Amino acid sequence: MAYFSEVDKIRYEGPKSRNPLAFKYYRAEEQVLGKTMEEHLRFAVSYWHTFTLQGNDPFGLPNMVRPWDGFTGMELAKKRVEAAFEFLDKLDVTYFCFHDRDIAPEADTLRETNRNLDEIVQMIEEYMQSSGKKLLWNTANMFSNPRFVHGAATSCDANVFAYAAAQVKKGIEVAKRLGAENYVFWGGREGYETLLNTDLKRELDNQARLLQMACDYADEIGFTGQFLLEPKPKEPTKHQYDFDAATTISFLKHYGLDGRFKLNIEANHATLAGHTFDHELAVSRIHGMLGSVDANQGDPLLGWDTDEFPTDLYSTTLAMVQILKNGGLHSGGLNFDAKVRRASMTPTDIFYGYIAGMDSFARGLKVAAKLVEDRVFDSVVEERYKSYQTGIGKEIVDGVATLQSLEDYVIDRNVVLQTSGRQEWLLSTLNQYLLEV
Amino acid sequence: MAYFSEVDKIRYEGPKSRNPLAFKYYRAEEQVLGKTMEEHLRFAVSYWHTFTLQGNDPFGLPNMVRPWDGFTGMELAKKRVEAAFEFLDKLDVTYFCFHDRDIAPEADTLRETNRNLDEIVQMIEEYMQSSGKKLLWNTANMFSNPRFVHGAATSCDANVFAYAAAQVKKGIEVAKRLGAENYVFWGGREGYETLLNTDLKRELDNQARLLQMACDYADEIGFTGQFLLEPKPKEPTKHQYDFDAATTISFLKHYGLDGRFKLNIEANHATLAGHTFDHELAVSRIHGMLGSVDANQGDPLLGWDTDEFPTDLYSTTLAMVQILKNGGLHSGGLNFDAKVRRASMTPTDIFYGYIAGMDSFARGLKVAAKLVEDRVFDSVVEERYKSYQTGIGKEIVDGVATLQSLEDYVIDRNVVLQTSGRQEWLLSTLNQYLLEV
Amino acid sequence: MAYFSEVDKIRYEGPKSRNPLAFKYYRAEEQVLGKTMEEHLRFAVSYWHTFTLQGNDPFGLPNMVRPWDGFTGMELAKKRVEAAFEFLDKLDVTYFCFHDRDIAPEADTLRETNRNLDEIVQMIEEYMQSSGKKLLWNTANMFSNPRFVHGAATSCDANVFAYAAAQVKKGIEVAKRLGAENYVFWGGREGYETLLNTDLKRELDNQARLLQMACDYADEIGFTGQFLLEPKPKEPTKHQYDFDAATTISFLKHYGLDGRFKLNIEANHATLAGHTFDHELAVSRIHGMLGSVDANQGDPLLGWDTDEFPTDLYSTTLAMVQILKNGGLHSGGLNFDAKVRRASMTPTDIFYGYIAGMDSFARGLKVAAKLVEDRVFDSVVEERYKSYQTGIGKEIVDGVATLQSLEDYVIDRNVVLQTSGRQEWLLSTLNQYLLEV
Amino acid sequence: MAYFSEVDKIRYEGPKSRNPLAFKYYRAEEQVLGKTMEEHLRFAVSYWHTFTLQGNDPFGLPNMVRPWDGFTGMELAKKRVEAAFEFLDKLDVTYFCFHDRDIAPEADTLRETNRNLDEIVQMIEEYMQSSGKKLLWNTANMFSNPRFVHGAATSCDANVFAYAAAQVKKGIEVAKRLGAENYVFWGGREGYETLLNTDLKRELDNQARLLQMACDYADEIGFTGQFLLEPKPKEPTKHQYDFDAATTISFLKHYGLDGRFKLNIEANHATLAGHTFDHELAVSRIHGMLGSVDANQGDPLLGWDTDEFPTDLYSTTLAMVQILKNGGLHSGGLNFDAKVRRASMTPTDIFYGYIAGMDSFARGLKVAAKLVEDRVFDSVVEERYKSYQTGIGKEIVDGVATLQSLEDYVIDRNVVLQTSGRQEWLLSTLNQYLLEV
Repeated sequence: MAYFSEVDKIRYEGPKSRNPLAFKYYRAEEQVLGKTMEEHLRFAVSYWHTFTLQGNDPFGLPNMVRPWDGFTGMELAKKRVEAAFEFLDKLDVTYFCFHDRDIAPEADTLRETNRNLDEIVQMIEEYMQSSGKKLLWNTANMFSNPRFVHGAATSCDANVFAYAAAQVKKGIEVAKRLGAENYVFWGGREGYETLLNTDLKRELDNQARLLQMACDYADEIGFTGQFLLEPKPKEPTKHQYDFDAATTISFLKHYGLDGRFKLNIEANHATLAGHTFDHELAVSRIHGMLGSVDANQGDPLLGWDTDEFPTDLYSTTLAMVQILKNGGLHSGGLNFDAKVRRASMTPTDIFYGYIAGMDSFARGLKVAAKLVEDRVFDSVVEERYKSYQTGIGKEIVDGVATLQSLEDYVIDRNVVLQTSGRQEWLLSTLNQYLLEV
Repeated sequence: MAYFSEVDKIRYEGPKSRNPLAFKYYRAEEQVLGKTMEEHLRFAVSYWHTFTLQGNDPFGLPNMVRPWDGFTGMELAKKRVEAAFEFLDKLDVTYFCFHDRDIAPEADTLRETNRNLDEIVQMIEEYMQSSGKKLLWNTANMFSNPRFVHGAATSCDANVFAYAAAQVKKGIEVAKRLGAENYVFWGGREGYETLLNTDLKRELDNQARLLQMACDYADEIGFTGQFLLEPKPKEPTKHQYDFDAATTISFLKHYGLDGRFKLNIEANHATLAGHTFDHELAVSRIHGMLGSVDANQGDPLLGWDTDEFPTDLYSTTLAMVQILKNGGLHSGGLNFDAKVRRASMTPTDIFYGYIAGMDSFARGLKVAAKLVEDRVFDSVVEERYKSYQTGIGKEIVDGVATLQSLEDYVIDRNVVLQTSGRQEWLLSTLNQYLLEV
Repeated sequence: MAYFSEVDKIRYEGPKSRNPLAFKYYRAEEQVLGKTMEEHLRFAVSYWHTFTLQGNDPFGLPNMVRPWDGFTGMELAKKRVEAAFEFLDKLDVTYFCFHDRDIAPEADTLRETNRNLDEIVQMIEEYMQSSGKKLLWNTANMFSNPRFVHGAATSCDANVFAYAAAQVKKGIEVAKRLGAENYVFWGGREGYETLLNTDLKRELDNQARLLQMACDYADEIGFTGQFLLEPKPKEPTKHQYDFDAATTISFLKHYGLDGRFKLNIEANHATLAGHTFDHELAVSRIHGMLGSVDANQGDPLLGWDTDEFPTDLYSTTLAMVQILKNGGLHSGGLNFDAKVRRASMTPTDIFYGYIAGMDSFARGLKVAAKLVEDRVFDSVVEERYKSYQTGIGKEIVDGVATLQSLEDYVIDRNVVLQTSGRQEWLLSTLNQYLLEV
Repeated sequence: MAYFSEVDKIRYEGPKSRNPLAFKYYRAEEQVLGKTMEEHLRFAVSYWHTFTLQGNDPFGLPNMVRPWDGFTGMELAKKRVEAAFEFLDKLDVTYFCFHDRDIAPEADTLRETNRNLDEIVQMIEEYMQSSGKKLLWNTANMFSNPRFVHGAATSCDANVFAYAAAQVKKGIEVAKRLGAENYVFWGGREGYETLLNTDLKRELDNQARLLQMACDYADEIGFTGQFLLEPKPKEPTKHQYDFDAATTISFLKHYGLDGRFKLNIEANHATLAGHTFDHELAVSRIHGMLGSVDANQGDPLLGWDTDEFPTDLYSTTLAMVQILKNGGLHSGGLNFDAKVRRASMTPTDIFYGYIAGMDSFARGLKVAAKLVEDRVFDSVVEERYKSYQTGIGKEIVDGVATLQSLEDYVIDRNVVLQTSGRQEWLLSTLNQYLLEV
């Protein structure tokens, strides 16, 4: 293994270390609330941002410097597999995720493409067996190829739907073969550019049809991993159907798919939808639909998907609060759907990026655990809503109250509410926990 | 009637008229697609923006100059009723809408407040009978009073829930008495400021509880008007629960309220949620949930609810396309939830505002009708999706196809899609229709 | 000429024509306010979006179908030149614009790259002579190549500054040779990603240094075309230095470059900066800095540069009002820095795009001319500010008033202002002119 | 003193304290880089948000509970002065800031209004003398009164300009009398709602005229405090002239006012303009125009001015880095232009708010000081730009290089740049300093 020879295995050296290639906060085996950090966080490496990213942007050509530069086609694909397992080893991360087209090149027909895929899947399978690394999830890239310009499941062309369906079939087979714990759908082209040429209802119906076929096929072949649907509001498509958690839950319920699907929540997608990350996690959680997380961050001043490594400790802490309240991520994990900035073009920057993200979530976990353990916010919440535990409040909750009974109750009262929400104090307390854990 | 003595009854004078106090495009009795313009558009005057607006903003004091300046309390309330019916008459608009607190002042207890309300309701009832004017909808203001600082149905305090419930009860009674065709809920304070002190699930459950009680009470007293829930993403509350149409439909379905409720869609709220107005109308329509419309416009460069009179002809045209596809608004209408700008402080400006809005929707209606009649966009849509009418496409739609059958179909094909969506031509055509109808 | 054989020369057929490949509003020779439409509008074709665009986006591969598909290198470059002049002819547009790297491929050294460039420039020169087509402006692409990852003039590396300088030198030479009426600078990478590694002042100083060298060199070789600097706030670089018109004017004045430079204002960049298009034009105009225009439109709901063909008639009309007030664009023009949407991948769509844009500006010109001719808004403005023509107002304007004299004037007055800005009426009037010209 | 009897003097108790009414990080006398924290931070209390805020928002009535509730007019004004000095004492803050209308009520004429003002100013003067508290700055409220609906200095009405001028005159006199270290201009109504009725150039000229008169008058009476102009992009006016730091600097330079004015930079205004707080500070700093700071924070997901107490430690740290690089704020300070959230309606919440803000800046100062002391980012910057210290880079900086000399230098080179900006590592390092100082 020699792709990242300039980097040794990353070790925990603690907060005081000035070694940029060491963990300051992440210690895999450290116990937090009865589980190890590793068990809590279930980090995953994203194959696409880590091993296929080239650095091009809408105004710039590829600029990343990579050990596999100079290779092409299947040879390149194999070098990347080797590099990937070296990387997973050096970073000491168990999980990874990929799209079908990340790992093997497309050919002229789907049959040939699948042949390429099979060859690489076999190679990955062998590496997994020897290394103990695991597949958190895989998915099908149904957005890059020009055929998906008008959508995949929601394409105006039935041939494209068929092609997408066949990709999903293969994807589920790969998931089963590699023991993926989840299978993800992200509909980057499922949406519309202009209503002037769009049959909205037909497209949504078709999207549901493909997901249903996937459920049927999974049952047929015995793939029992969790299906995940990932919300995103815009980009690349102007109006994406799976706008946010609430919209996606609505879609799944409307088509009766909520029993088999959960959500894969991404921080940057939350920002683009006008929500906070923890809002999207909370909405998913209370509906029993929080499945997995794409751990990254966007730039609130930019209107596109920057997919930066997560370093904002407020965001990681509040996310971990939701995840702890969810009893963990179960079959899901924290996948770093994050890429180094274009100006960070050296291989070492990839390590800096992951260390930044892992340390940020490690610190977030510890702060969140302490907040939960001390019931800092829970006790505030309990106190705030206590009027629903007895009397008229209990009658409301119990479904006994009616408009008439409530009118009788208040008709001669002067109902005043001057109880502070204490937001300023709560934010001070959050800072104190952040700094002092 | 002498409140707006400087303005005569507004008449249709046609596009060439230079009279600023004349309709250029709106002619009530003109036939469009088999109905009169008036039947299509069902315009309504919003009581709050028209008769209670004072012109204050977060940095400015009241500045509106109004014929009822100098009156207070119940006397003021009565002057406003008189002015309102003069205004409806001069503008020749049939419908109006109000919140309970727009029409009568609040007193120390709900009993006294209701007494005020009853007195004004009776006055309005008499005016309605003599003038033939109708109530499109009424609603309860459960956001202005300090008691609603933490929410109404979603307040942390059960007393506030009870108070809100009693207001809703009275509101439904008023709706029944005045023959309101709809009753609206807008949850300006139903949401949260910070998750740190919020029990999200409890609050959503409570919101549903209040709506269910309202349904029960309406059944009990025989109010058969349509219930409407109005989406809005933020302002005044940071995270409002009814973020957009999809979220609101999801909420209603989750709690089994979708049979009794439809949506009241506002243009400016669509903008704040990151959607277009016609997107929100279309989403509501395809779910059978398009109930009524708050006709206004926001400023895409501003992040708050400016509630401007609608003058953007693209917006009104595309909205009317959706409304025509919905078979009209049925019991709903186009309520101008719009206010004159703070710098338009004279009474005459209110007329300018309504004329601007009514003319813009009249023109939008005519353009939309021609687009629908000529099947301009419908024929594009039909052509685009025709592959779903036969063969593999039909199998997909009919539920016969499976991942396996679709893989068999495409496995040796090179599926390419190079059919243009023709957006540039569609937008040119839209301009041509806009200008030449 | 056979690149666009499916399209005949585009002719004016008037508003009623249903021929999608005809002008409805643009008639080159039509007189408006004493000049022809062609003289007013000075349309230009953008080489990059029209002849080099491939359709890739951050999530999608190239998908455009083009007559020159299959060619590469210098052969491709030559095919594009041939196609470009066929296109200019069929569209009957006089001007075009290009970046150096649009027209000829880059080679290993600048010397070889310049050799490629010279060969194509000579070919273009010959086509220009035979066809009468003209170069509105050219520019240097100093953002695509990986060497510009940290900036061009503002790069942290002096070698990159030197390289950029050499590109500018060559660009000015090409401009002189081809008789370009302007030379443009757009600093897509002149800005910073994070202040943590940035020397802001040094970078701004260096940007000014390059522009000064350009002025010196232009003087030296006798290039007398107008220099233009183009504002843009973000994308590709997070914080671009030339954020908007005001910032760019400030920069030019600070470094004493405002005598030689004007601004190239783009509609979509205005949107991204939080301004309207006509605001940016007006700010430039009143500072005597309105040089040229990149005519396109963005999507107010999207946070990136969509560079769509301009079809919003409000935007084109209000832009033309500013341009008419500027006495026209002088050496500048309306360059369609606009691309067909990715889903519009056929060659014919390019024509649809340009027709959409040209017709929209033609209509905008006619509406604007009528508004100016009728002094619709000018008379409102004149009336509004008339208090500055006499008395205390004149003293203020004449510089005679002091805080003391003004205090004396108002100290015992009750100064009230209840004159309406009449925005609602103004917007109605704008609609009336838009529809009825 | 008995207004805030439930709160004792706030003391430093250190990070471990669980007392919500204690400082955790702010210790006035602690030495940082050779000055005390107090000297570095120069905190100020904003009179308006702290003593006149009532809690109303665009959808809600006043709800704040205050010790001075029940008083009106001059009596209320006096109670607030007493409360203000008690508050300053309990919080141990030296400075405060006010608008003229915060401290005394307006009367029918300016003469009477000034009489009110004088009475309160005298009372404040006495309190200042006995307590040692100081006035950081005062300003004139030229945005709340209806007369300013179309602007103050930029009003279309000369009488309003005159009135504003007289207010400024009085403001400068008050500043001199109370020894204010600065005098601020914030032009909330200086801008336009629609260009259709606006003479942009005239308005900007008039704005400059008023500022020039202020300079002249200050010279005349010997007020030597620093004049400050505060940028804000929108709200309450749609397009405000002083959009951001760059625009404001441009305006001041254009009118020759930059010698007498510096900028007052507000965090929330930066967010609304699409910038980061430290960007605006840095732009001001490198132009020698960083005068003072309005220390607050906005919500990146909301489009209006929330003026929240600053609790984001990233923001406070990066702000303090810029302030330290500026050699401190000199005559300026950190004014908490921040208000408690509407749901934080008790008097104690005001203390929580200030403690949150002061602790956040105290921590930010310490982290920034360590970053500066360790030259963490400075050494990165130095290394990055070192190519400008010698050779071709030095020639560029020295003004010796020309386009010709630079072309000669690079014409046969392959200029490549693969030096990482290391953003991910820099952000990790920032976290480490934030947590470990």
